[in-house]
Amino acid sequence: MGNEEDIGKIIDYSGREFQYIGKRTIRPDGVDKVTGRANFGADFTVNGMIHGRVVRSPHAHAKIKKINVDKALKLDGVKAVITGKDFPEIDINDKAVGEVVVSYYDMAHNIIARDKVYYDGHAVAAVAATTPDIAEKAAKLIEVEYDVLKPVMTAARAMKKNAPVLHKHIVTAGVEPKPEKPSNVASRTEFKLGDPAAGFADADVIVEREFSTQTVHQGYIEPHACCASISADGNANVWCSSQGQFMVRAYTAKICGMETSKVKVIPAEIGGGFGGKTVVYLEPLAVMLAKKAGRPVKMVMTRDEVLRATGPTSGGTARAKIGAKKDGTIVAGELELVYEAGAYPGSPVALGCMTGFAPYDIKNVSCVGWDVLVNRPKAAAYRAPGAPVAAFGVECTLDVLAEELGMCPLELRMKNAAVEGTQAPYGVKFNRIGYKETLEAAKAHPHWSAPLGPNQGRGIASGFWFNIGGTSSAEVMVNEDGTVIVATGNPDIGGSRASMALMAAEGLGIDVARIKPLVADTESVPFSMLTGGSRVTFATGKAVIEAAQDAVNDLKRRAAKIWDVDIEQVEWENGQAVCIESTQHKPLSIAAIAAKADKTGGAISGRANINATGAGPGFGTHICDVEVDPETGYVTVLRYTAIQDVGKAIHPSYVEGQLQGGAVQGIGWALNEEYVYGEDGRLQNTGFLDYRMPVASDLPMIDTVVVEVPNPGHPYGVRGVGETPIVPPLAAVANAVSHAIGKRVTDLPLSPPRLLAVIDGK
Amino acid sequence: MGNEEDIGKIIDYSGREFQYIGKRTIRPDGVDKVTGRANFGADFTVNGMIHGRVVRSPHAHAKIKKINVDKALKLDGVKAVITGKDFPEIDINDKAVGEVVVSYYDMAHNIIARDKVYYDGHAVAAVAATTPDIAEKAAKLIEVEYDVLKPVMTAARAMKKNAPVLHKHIVTAGVEPKPEKPSNVASRTEFKLGDPAAGFADADVIVEREFSTQTVHQGYIEPHACCASISADGNANVWCSSQGQFMVRAYTAKICGMETSKVKVIPAEIGGGFGGKTVVYLEPLAVMLAKKAGRPVKMVMTRDEVLRATGPTSGGTARAKIGAKKDGTIVAGELELVYEAGAYPGSPVALGCMTGFAPYDIKNVSCVGWDVLVNRPKAAAYRAPGAPVAAFGVECTLDVLAEELGMCPLELRMKNAAVEGTQAPYGVKFNRIGYKETLEAAKAHPHWSAPLGPNQGRGIASGFWFNIGGTSSAEVMVNEDGTVIVATGNPDIGGSRASMALMAAEGLGIDVARIKPLVADTESVPFSMLTGGSRVTFATGKAVIEAAQDAVNDLKRRAAKIWDVDIEQVEWENGQAVCIESTQHKPLSIAAIAAKADKTGGAISGRANINATGAGPGFGTHICDVEVDPETGYVTVLRYTAIQDVGKAIHPSYVEGQLQGGAVQGIGWALNEEYVYGEDGRLQNTGFLDYRMPVASDLPMIDTVVVEVPNPGHPYGVRGVGETPIVPPLAAVANAVSHAIGKRVTDLPLSPPRLLAVIDGK
Repeated sequence: MGNEEDIGKIIDYSGREFQYIGKRTIRPDGVDKVTGRANFGADFTVNGMIHGRVVRSPHAHAKIKKINVDKALKLDGVKAVITGKDFPEIDINDKAVGEVVVSYYDMAHNIIARDKVYYDGHAVAAVAATTPDIAEKAAKLIEVEYDVLKPVMTAARAMKKNAPVLHKHIVTAGVEPKPEKPSNVASRTEFKLGDPAAGFADADVIVEREFSTQTVHQGYIEPHACCASISADGNANVWCSSQGQFMVRAYTAKICGMETSKVKVIPAEIGGGFGGKTVVYLEPLAVMLAKKAGRPVKMVMTRDEVLRATGPTSGGTARAKIGAKKDGTIVAGELELVYEAGAYPGSPVALGCMTGFAPYDIKNVSCVGWDVLVNRPKAAAYRAPGAPVAAFGVECTLDVLAEELGMCPLELRMKNAAVEGTQAPYGVKFNRIGYKETLEAAKAHPHWSAPLGPNQGRGIASGFWFNIGGTSSAEVMVNEDGTVIVATGNPDIGGSRASMALMAAEGLGIDVARIKPLVADTESVPFSMLTGGSRVTFATGKAVIEAAQDAVNDLKRRAAKIWDVDIEQVEWENGQAVCIESTQHKPLSIAAIAAKADKTGGAISGRANINATGAGPGFGTHICDVEVDPETGYVTVLRYTAIQDVGKAIHPSYVEGQLQGGAVQGIGWALNEEYVYGEDGRLQNTGFLDYRMPVASDLPMIDTVVVEVPNPGHPYGVRGVGETPIVPPLAAVANAVSHAIGKRVTDLPLSPPRLLAVIDGK
Repeated sequence: MGNEEDIGKIIDYSGREFQYIGKRTIRPDGVDKVTGRANFGADFTVNGMIHGRVVRSPHAHAKIKKINVDKALKLDGVKAVITGKDFPEIDINDKAVGEVVVSYYDMAHNIIARDKVYYDGHAVAAVAATTPDIAEKAAKLIEVEYDVLKPVMTAARAMKKNAPVLHKHIVTAGVEPKPEKPSNVASRTEFKLGDPAAGFADADVIVEREFSTQTVHQGYIEPHACCASISADGNANVWCSSQGQFMVRAYTAKICGMETSKVKVIPAEIGGGFGGKTVVYLEPLAVMLAKKAGRPVKMVMTRDEVLRATGPTSGGTARAKIGAKKDGTIVAGELELVYEAGAYPGSPVALGCMTGFAPYDIKNVSCVGWDVLVNRPKAAAYRAPGAPVAAFGVECTLDVLAEELGMCPLELRMKNAAVEGTQAPYGVKFNRIGYKETLEAAKAHPHWSAPLGPNQGRGIASGFWFNIGGTSSAEVMVNEDGTVIVATGNPDIGGSRASMALMAAEGLGIDVARIKPLVADTESVPFSMLTGGSRVTFATGKAVIEAAQDAVNDLKRRAAKIWDVDIEQVEWENGQAVCIESTQHKPLSIAAIAAKADKTGGAISGRANINATGAGPGFGTHICDVEVDPETGYVTVLRYTAIQDVGKAIHPSYVEGQLQGGAVQGIGWALNEEYVYGEDGRLQNTGFLDYRMPVASDLPMIDTVVVEVPNPGHPYGVRGVGETPIVPPLAAVANAVSHAIGKRVTDLPLSPPRLLAVIDGK
């Protein structure tokens, strides 16, 4: 990337001219990353540091009878051992205040088990020793006696009346009357619009299909890693890779029973998160080990631990029913989702209900979701959490409907596409959105009309993601030489350093090369929500734009002081202060004003702490061509085009990378990725050789079309970008495969054995 | 310390009540320091780090003919070698803009020699290798050919017409007409008040004496140390111990030819600086080595290097002449100072001229200073730079005058003491000051009237320091749980973490334990001037107070939003928002407001970037009792009392520590410390065994009296504290020794051989 010719085109619906944003500037994090100099979670080293290791349950469901740590403690070099008993108990109703409700009770018990283990890999103890080898040995010397229970591995099984119940305190929420008995169904969610029954009664054609998907992992390349130190007076420093330094601070403080001010989190570079690093696993263990050992403790997960014990996304089923008139007008939609939450409540099923039909203008919609507990690791967020499975159900069913109506699936979508003013099934009226524009771009794209050969098929599917705003803070500090630091509190996952610098450059009117973007620690900028929800370029960007404006106001004030004129006499033009109505004062550059900062009142800076509203929804449409080997069931992706309304691409190369990355993850989900559990509830594919993610050689170059329909809620028109592109691929691939083999596929992944069974009619 | 009974008393002239300030709260840096967990300059470790070593000149004055680095580069493990040629040339007129004028040209050449070396220890090359041992070996393999020149070791010699001239481009500044020939006299400074000649003509008694002092070092325990890394795209990180992270950033960027934004400085704890760490030595070398090696480079000085090649303060002479009426009224004063600048211009002689007579209300004063170049290391600041030697001259001459007049030396000072409205010889009229109050406290102190035995003597002397303000920035960030971070850009040398936290607590109205003070890096707060000039508690404290007020305004705005009332309805009382005129709204604590921050507009914080004016001058009076062994000349300090007007002691224990520390350094200067050079210009006492600083067993407990005459220029009355206490001791000790032996001593240090010679009349 970096070469504008390499990649697909940009279709601009605003026509607005920018001086800096939209340019493919040099990546601020690029050189360090490609030269191996960037510091990731495992790269921190502190004086006196020792090494921590987690003891994990080999059982999917068991009572802990006894933990004997004596042998481990006697091993030379062992400095500390902790179990659940070392942590404060947390009230069962204690929840984090924030965008998403987080149960601290569940989180605490997930991080280290107390009386019971709920999945293969559940942490039961941790040990710290002078070397990783000794820690490993010591972990093996910790004796845990279990009372093994029957595991419940699937939602279908978990919902049965006679299924073993994981948690005695959980009764199904969201149903009336409130059940008396505990069950594995944590909650029922419903979203409704209009009168679905009347809608279906009015329909000429009704199609209904059920689809299933498996547990899949985000598959970030960098395993969780951290290093924690804590002083004798209780001040902890935590270095780690995460999607939010402030999230790590809040959660670690809570789990360890500390005040927020006692935990400082220094963010490392992050080698992928995709939602999976929006929670903590190791950090509270490292802090507690460090406290007990009196030494800094480093902890690094193996891939085995990442797959077994961090948060994948839910496997689930989606039953979609759509009713339409003969002309293709959809009059009713119904969606029922069942998602596996893992060992604690909280699958993204509600988000699935909200997003499945969101691209369409349908007057009557009903979406019901079930959050079901199983003996698998607690689900975490994964890129547009909940949306891909829902879209898989809806977009494949739409494909079936198009077949029944004899309509082009693209035209069917065009006819029913949500536009400005459409009422979304989750209760909002859309502002200006660009879904239709993505369909128009798909229609116009050469890919859509290219010929196909034998055993080949083409699929199309669309996807929606809300994109969120939220709390962000930014500081713009003008150095003595007029260079500028832009500090924000969000890890740079998808290029936020570049986009923050570009937006600051636009606001200040100076070359982006004079701006240094900074991912600040938790004591260097005020609180910012984590990097997720496709919020950072929008919300933190908005904070940066406001902070830059605040700095410009300060610069103007200083220029007025230097000139001894009223501030109203000063305008800011092209990165310079200009004195209106007076030609005697030559324009002053930022550098000229900065050089006199001490004479005009001290350092020059701007800041903004905001809770950003006005996030613009994102819509994407993907086209996929596949060829299926009828002998083996092996699917080759021949061509793939990802089209998305991004509002405004601040740095197009990063935006294209997001579209490509999302598409690839979705393709992996569709074709090969899945958690394979044995009868005993133990995960059988705990490495990247068995958990099969797509690699570069598996795929063609993913083509992109960046559609820019400006979001009216952002000064530069930005919408979130990163999550939408994982929503369409499951259905786009499945539709393409269905067309290639002439049979409807409904169960992911479409791995060779499974697909061969479909081809062979088994 | 820490126990109020331990130490001398506090005399409060304000009567103002504070809730938090003035309390001896737990030291935020204390536990880490006493448990060895605090990270000083040499404690940083970075992945891939290698080790740097400096090659230093063994000659005091020589031309560099050739540097051959080939052998060193061939040694296994050597990664880079640099010489002066690796650095950009700096314009000879390029000076730093700031409080003190700094010549970047001189600084660059002092850090690494170009064509000539000017003192024993002057850096000529540096090498980086995989281990310290290899670096040491490699340094020895670097062959430097010198053309050795005659060194000029004293000001007296340097000012002679036939003396070798160090720099061909320096002609004496401040004399008319401008000289044609270069010389070792860098400049002449003069301050004049009234008509000195007329004043002396009007005097009944005139006394005149000349005094001398030797080069002394600040003697900080921690040698200079740093670690620098620089990425392939030119972003450098520098971890180091210094008196100012922003100073290190500015100087390093300049010397290395980089933009300010390309250098980030992360401050370590500092193990003493006293002015000596207001400049850089290793940091630019480490950055250049890191750049060439492509690896992070750590550099740590030995004590030998610290003494030979960092900046001690000037040795010098002070000739003082005082004329008075019979009743003790001083009518004229004259002071001539000659200070050795070392190898480059910039002794603190001008500050000596400004301070010597400052404690006194004299109508006619003349002060002349000479800045003289010698082949010694370039002088750096040392606690109240320039003032101790000037005060030594004036305060000893006052003692002589008191004897001649038959007056009590304390009464003589009282009669002539500067008060509010007095015109100081350096051109300002004093605001409310507390000099007289220190004399009254001395008179009332039991020490002043205690009996003395044989061979014992008592001395009294006073001292003055300006105390400065300047550019400081502060941020007050309110965490989600209502705890607070207070970030400032100054290293904590004398307890600034404690005083910033206390001032923030006072401003916010919350317990200081809920506040975490932070020494921030250069990208976490806007620019702040370095820690020096006794400015931090005053100026940065003022910024903290303003930032806390800014945060309170934000908190009130949020409370108004929560209550849905006008902000005018909200008062801030005892750390809570209170709704006036409505009893239905219960007061909201910071924690309660913070918990709803996201609902009321984002994170809550306050900030202030200021250039603080209104610093209040500091005056101190010290009483010293000694006993002199007439057989050996050995001086025992029997009792010592340091009295000072500090405005307001924010944390009294730290303030008392400053008074004690300053007194001890002054006693060392008076009694034993001196640079001993051989005929060849090489330093002969390059370790703490030969460079004799006082240790705890050498001294009695230093008693203190903290006088609090509030500075009207600070909201809480703060004056600078740290520098004034080193000003009186030279004269206090010398006066005591003179009285003990019955002969006037004029030359420091009063080490046994020197004092024995005086006793024996040699």
